[in-house]
Amino acid sequence: MSEPRRSIATVCLSGTLEDKLAAAAAAGFDGVEIFENDLIASAASPADIGRYCRDLGLSVDLYQPFRDFEAVPPARLRENLRRAERKFDVMEQLGTDLVLVCSTVSPEAVDDDELAAEQLRVLADRAEARGMRVAYEALAWGRFVNTYEHSWRIVRRADHPALGLCLDSFHVLSRDGDPALIRTIPGEKLFYLQLADAPKLDMDVLQWSRHHRLFPGQGSFDLKTFAGNVLEAGYTGPLSLEVFNDVFRQADPKPAAVDAMRSLRLLEEQLGIPVADPAPDLDGYAFAELLADPATATGLSDGLAALGFAETGEHRSKPVRRWEQGGARVLINASASAADTAEIGALAVESSDPLRSARRAEAMSSPILPRERGPQEAGLASVAAPDGTGVFFCDTGAPDGWLSDFRDTATAGEGLITGIDHVSLTQPFDHFDEAALFCRSVLGLEPEEVTEYAAPFGMVRNRGMVDATRSVRIALNGTLVRRGEWAPAVRDPQHIAFTCTDVLAMAEKLRASAAPVLPIPDNYYDDLDARFGLDLELLGSLRRCSVLYDRDSDGEFLHLFTELFGSRVFLELVQRIDGYAGYGVANAPVRMAAHRRQRLTAFGAASRNS
Amino acid sequence: MSEPRRSIATVCLSGTLEDKLAAAAAAGFDGVEIFENDLIASAASPADIGRYCRDLGLSVDLYQPFRDFEAVPPARLRENLRRAERKFDVMEQLGTDLVLVCSTVSPEAVDDDELAAEQLRVLADRAEARGMRVAYEALAWGRFVNTYEHSWRIVRRADHPALGLCLDSFHVLSRDGDPALIRTIPGEKLFYLQLADAPKLDMDVLQWSRHHRLFPGQGSFDLKTFAGNVLEAGYTGPLSLEVFNDVFRQADPKPAAVDAMRSLRLLEEQLGIPVADPAPDLDGYAFAELLADPATATGLSDGLAALGFAETGEHRSKPVRRWEQGGARVLINASASAADTAEIGALAVESSDPLRSARRAEAMSSPILPRERGPQEAGLASVAAPDGTGVFFCDTGAPDGWLSDFRDTATAGEGLITGIDHVSLTQPFDHFDEAALFCRSVLGLEPEEVTEYAAPFGMVRNRGMVDATRSVRIALNGTLVRRGEWAPAVRDPQHIAFTCTDVLAMAEKLRASAAPVLPIPDNYYDDLDARFGLDLELLGSLRRCSVLYDRDSDGEFLHLFTELFGSRVFLELVQRIDGYAGYGVANAPVRMAAHRRQRLTAFGAASRNS
Repeated sequence: MSEPRRSIATVCLSGTLEDKLAAAAAAGFDGVEIFENDLIASAASPADIGRYCRDLGLSVDLYQPFRDFEAVPPARLRENLRRAERKFDVMEQLGTDLVLVCSTVSPEAVDDDELAAEQLRVLADRAEARGMRVAYEALAWGRFVNTYEHSWRIVRRADHPALGLCLDSFHVLSRDGDPALIRTIPGEKLFYLQLADAPKLDMDVLQWSRHHRLFPGQGSFDLKTFAGNVLEAGYTGPLSLEVFNDVFRQADPKPAAVDAMRSLRLLEEQLGIPVADPAPDLDGYAFAELLADPATATGLSDGLAALGFAETGEHRSKPVRRWEQGGARVLINASASAADTAEIGALAVESSDPLRSARRAEAMSSPILPRERGPQEAGLASVAAPDGTGVFFCDTGAPDGWLSDFRDTATAGEGLITGIDHVSLTQPFDHFDEAALFCRSVLGLEPEEVTEYAAPFGMVRNRGMVDATRSVRIALNGTLVRRGEWAPAVRDPQHIAFTCTDVLAMAEKLRASAAPVLPIPDNYYDDLDARFGLDLELLGSLRRCSVLYDRDSDGEFLHLFTELFGSRVFLELVQRIDGYAGYGVANAPVRMAAHRRQRLTAFGAASRNS
Repeated sequence: MSEPRRSIATVCLSGTLEDKLAAAAAAGFDGVEIFENDLIASAASPADIGRYCRDLGLSVDLYQPFRDFEAVPPARLRENLRRAERKFDVMEQLGTDLVLVCSTVSPEAVDDDELAAEQLRVLADRAEARGMRVAYEALAWGRFVNTYEHSWRIVRRADHPALGLCLDSFHVLSRDGDPALIRTIPGEKLFYLQLADAPKLDMDVLQWSRHHRLFPGQGSFDLKTFAGNVLEAGYTGPLSLEVFNDVFRQADPKPAAVDAMRSLRLLEEQLGIPVADPAPDLDGYAFAELLADPATATGLSDGLAALGFAETGEHRSKPVRRWEQGGARVLINASASAADTAEIGALAVESSDPLRSARRAEAMSSPILPRERGPQEAGLASVAAPDGTGVFFCDTGAPDGWLSDFRDTATAGEGLITGIDHVSLTQPFDHFDEAALFCRSVLGLEPEEVTEYAAPFGMVRNRGMVDATRSVRIALNGTLVRRGEWAPAVRDPQHIAFTCTDVLAMAEKLRASAAPVLPIPDNYYDDLDARFGLDLELLGSLRRCSVLYDRDSDGEFLHLFTELFGSRVFLELVQRIDGYAGYGVANAPVRMAAHRRQRLTAFGAASRNS
């Protein structure tokens, strides 16, 4: 199957109509659906907008929505036809021949399929006379017509060449509709296909639709089956996105359009359309790179040393040192200039085919970043995740791999730390779902369940992204509500979690050293005792060493945090026992409060200072 | 009835436990419910927290929640009793004698009221032995027990002096429970009362409860009847707020606690408890004051002059000029220093008793602002609305009223503008519901329906607040999602809308002058034609003069906007025909796009510049 045309409704994106069109074109869309309200607020005439689209290489695939047309008394029909002619005028100027008519919600309408079909036939006649067509869509909350089977019965009954169906995945799947029957509809009667995903929510379907839709691959709808049936029926029009989402509606439209494009390519891949090289297998982290100012870099180095890491190499041309223990590698890049700075500048995954990983990333709208490289340095390909973190594709074992960029200074010792378990990144508010889709489409990771929890300064959500063998895990975090000025705590925390074969043994060792372990308060352990009735000796060790504990249906989890380095980065040691699959998020609020104490230095400082 | 004790659950507020307690005390609460997770994350021991509360003048009224206790197999009962003893230890240290036990959601539990009662009796025995009591609460989503009637049957069956009920308005009213039966419960068995309001939402009740509760008076629950029944039954404990809300959870806890206190006082007033002087009748706006830098003030003055206003006075000691037309008065205060600045610094309402208005404001947690005043100047009382706007209480006709602070320079002419219809204020994201409650409790305004609409840069909500005679209207606006960096449009727009007896005649006059009327695009009028089929002459006039049009079930609305003065303030002329009650919000997105064009000066600048 060849690549289909890709379209996006202007309602998916923020801004004026001109902002939206520019963003859609820049992301590589072939066409757009013009949402009426966007046009009405524009000072450009429909003809100017049509020209602007063509200049940008965009076709105008659909004009929408036209509401409350059918099954009405004669006087209202006359008014509705007059209204339609005015909109045909607009469409003519825009240069589109297709209008979306949604099933009526009008109190004036009656429950009469024959009348609906008859009136839609009149509309289709009018449209045909002007070289136009009408796509009829069943809204999930339509007053009488709210399933695609019903809209198809009416379109079939009207039997007019200029009248066909618009299928919208949300309207079908939100009502648990069976998409199998779509295959019985002749392809030439499928005029338009709108795609939207959504999280499974138990709420009023109209509110769900208007506020919480997502791009394909970001929610829980089975769009592969849905769109597969539509294509199998013989549909040849564009795959078009129509997503109403409160967050996307106010986010920068340029990255949002890229996110949208990525979602379509991933769906096409699932449909068997060859749009990108398949994602190569991953085999864990090659390294994580911390970018810090020189003073904070020194603190980080001391911290890693306290955890048993050895400095094993220095970069041939940059202020970057390599630290290792077991299979865990951390690069410390001391080139940041602002004081108190540390951030995860990049993470690197082991790919079975780095070049193919890079080609896939490019096909998934993540261009390879230009990179300064010394004459003898390895040609590492990297892309930018939505939060700006660099992602490298590596083959550490290769003879001219990234390790050759370093002058070796020592050999890594073996210790209790064996590798990187996961990297945790707080996403900018507007980009949480985009980040998950990036991991999915570019890296081939699969999403885990979203966990929401109440943290000291607001609600937080957490979603793990993992590869098939669980060798690469990325924990994405974000707030449910964009933070304001309040919350004098750690902003956008990030951390690297190391796999440790024996967290308690390690913690006892650290107690004897000056390691910057984050102190966990007694109240936490008193509650642990009440909840789990742990063996008293174990509880005593946990308490003494500030080790945290969690349990799921599979197993147990021991973990320990360091204090902050700079204003947002810390390290974690984790031990998964018997297949514990989570990230200890139940303990995250305790950790957050503890890090805030570290930043404020003394109990009560908050109230004294404000 | 005397004033009850007022309490608040720490879960209502953002921050660490210490932040929350300090905010609750500062707002004047008598006690708190300590939410377990807040304590667990604290480094202070329960005894220290108890002492801190007592130092702040707060009693610890309740410890919560204790989950999944009852109707379980014997081994689990033993574990649950052990868990309870550990929590009694904590309560002892905190200095509270009451624990909240919520009805079980455990898969281990069985549907057996007798067993539940028996096990709760055992728990009550243990509690009594330590001088404590247990308040049993039916969660709306409890597995077997999810109505207060059911929890009361179990408590009655257990028949233990240390076991009583906790009633939570959310759990009862979210399920449309009938609060009338509460009056049949003996007062001494009502151990605790939790109050929360909520908007009426058609969604999963647990998600509704955990994310969308509001303080009393901010939602649509009938708390007056609910709480009235509880008091009538003989309940003598505190009125306690327990509100889970995503926005409050991340907002500054100090104003949030004040908002909470205001909500209780308003509820008490509705219950007939004398907490404040009743709100005096209002009779329109005395004036609105615009604060601007000198250059923007000149632009504003020119704009008012173009609208037919006359400069009628100058303040005796401040750089403030008075402008008038009909009953509309605007003060222009030219003392702002930053360029391009204009904002609504204050609004003033005519009160039938300004002193009583001020006393009521103070009783409703809105202290009278200190004010610099010249020796001969009027003693105007003002308070600060949550967005910082000053609100004055005036009696313009009084001999020593505010007018005497001005040296009259001219007489106001009569024109088509007769007064101020409304003032529109965009609320800071965290304070939308607080602002509505401020208007309600301090000014005695009543809330109208919330309208949500899609604007070019995100979703917006609008809520009118009006007095009984509709002489004072305040239109509150806010975004559904806090705005980020994107959206290079007008931030937090504010405007004054003047009542105009003939907007079209006025608009024709303005066309002939250099008045800064906001141009409205042709596309808007083409759509108006399609939608309403207006008389062609009227449509032509609207189009020619950039007058906007709306219609509701009562009547019609004509309105016209000026361009922006500074970066966020503009003026509006409105004409309500046949009792139109709204604010023309359907046209707001068109206005926003037009103001953005004004700020960007040329079509396409956005895409060229970014």
